[in-house]
Amino acid sequence: MRFLKGHGTENDFVILPDPDGELDLHPALVAAICDRRAGIGADGVLRVMRTKLSPEVSDQAGQAEWFMDYRNADGSMAEMCGNGARVFARYLVEAGLAEPGEFAMATRGGVRRVRLGADGDVSVEMGKPVVRGRSVAGVGGHEYEGVHVDLGNPHLACPIGDPVVQLDLGHQPAFDPGVFPSGVNIELFNPVGEARVVMRVFERGVGETRSCGTGAVATAVAAAGLSGETTGTWAVEVPGGTLTVTLEAETSYLSGPAVLVAAGNLTLAE
Amino acid sequence: MRFLKGHGTENDFVILPDPDGELDLHPALVAAICDRRAGIGADGVLRVMRTKLSPEVSDQAGQAEWFMDYRNADGSMAEMCGNGARVFARYLVEAGLAEPGEFAMATRGGVRRVRLGADGDVSVEMGKPVVRGRSVAGVGGHEYEGVHVDLGNPHLACPIGDPVVQLDLGHQPAFDPGVFPSGVNIELFNPVGEARVVMRVFERGVGETRSCGTGAVATAVAAAGLSGETTGTWAVEVPGGTLTVTLEAETSYLSGPAVLVAAGNLTLAE
Repeated sequence: MRFLKGHGTENDFVILPDPDGELDLHPALVAAICDRRAGIGADGVLRVMRTKLSPEVSDQAGQAEWFMDYRNADGSMAEMCGNGARVFARYLVEAGLAEPGEFAMATRGGVRRVRLGADGDVSVEMGKPVVRGRSVAGVGGHEYEGVHVDLGNPHLACPIGDPVVQLDLGHQPAFDPGVFPSGVNIELFNPVGEARVVMRVFERGVGETRSCGTGAVATAVAAAGLSGETTGTWAVEVPGGTLTVTLEAETSYLSGPAVLVAAGNLTLAE
Repeated sequence: MRFLKGHGTENDFVILPDPDGELDLHPALVAAICDRRAGIGADGVLRVMRTKLSPEVSDQAGQAEWFMDYRNADGSMAEMCGNGARVFARYLVEAGLAEPGEFAMATRGGVRRVRLGADGDVSVEMGKPVVRGRSVAGVGGHEYEGVHVDLGNPHLACPIGDPVVQLDLGHQPAFDPGVFPSGVNIELFNPVGEARVVMRVFERGVGETRSCGTGAVATAVAAAGLSGETTGTWAVEVPGGTLTVTLEAETSYLSGPAVLVAAGNLTLAE
């Protein structure tokens, strides 16, 4: 089985080129590939399939030739992954399956536009963030108020006075289960300059991670709100690198580095 | 840069075939390769070099054609690694560089004999364990007495009454710095049947790991001592699989599965 490995701000993925959908990509196989010791290790798998051959998304075939079939590390399916989409776009261009510049790809969350800039960064459209109100996160005995932002998945992005670098995110932060009955991704951030923040994130069901694309967008929304803005561009520094979020009236964009680091063949027993 | 990835009881390694020693394998490159998100990810690197071209071990060239140049994940050099040696031997045979059966390889710790059995397991000679006395480890408020065993690196192997599966090994166990001035690898084990134990290990400078070859040998020495024995064969169940340790009067052997799971090319920027 041919594979590549890449990452976007240290959110890492195994890419499986499978244009004709011949792989039996069952959950146990995905989990074995993502196992960081017995497999290759990754936060998720990006299968590369022709949209027209993928029943789940064949209605998008007229707009996007390639389907990003994204799976979580535990083998479950997911609609969309911002950093994954950026790595997927990098692969399409390096493999000669798409031209540099702007193009569309199919996802379970609908068609997404991506752009490979001349600076090497990859940008993906993330849709319109929906602000649903305010709520409170509890970390290390402190309560932090933040903004509840919906990006297809729920976020609580909290500007805090304490340095985020000093937080203990080794445990699940507290949140209001009445507001977030299915859990929530929690971002904590410090403004550190003109349109620039430092963010850490505790992902729902995972724990602290090095980066989270939707979390960066939610954080930009909350940072913008501090000065009464709803559009503009923010630099979001995460432990794995720096992302740039652009908020427009009807959509948003996530931009940053996306690199491929290895390619080869997998010989995992199924 | 060509690479392979393999593991022995989930102690995992990136293998770099470099017969003529052309790679500039500096510590930062090793650390980048072993990074589990931005690189391939592994517990260490096994460079495959011709012994006669390796100044460090060229005196072993008459006995072993290939040198296991082992590096820790942080880029530092190490003399020997039991599970690494087993994965290295598997690679040599699969690459056609050695014949199945018994052969020798060069390490910084001297020539080591390995054997690929018909059952698929790989066995490596680990040398003579030296018992240096007894000492005490502190875990979760409990004190456990064990055996101080030297296998080139220091071990404290403790038979305990509490189920090892219930231990909290998230923190450094306490030990006597007068006995172990450079730290110690701490094994805690339960006898679970005839010549069979379940073991967990806290590795010096690393934390809890899924397996530790020298730790399994130290544990077999301590388990043998419980019944007044110094030779025999013990099955050691670790979180990553099952190892078999054979103690002889003048040496010891570590045996178990060793598999290669992927091969390809690395494109990490240095």
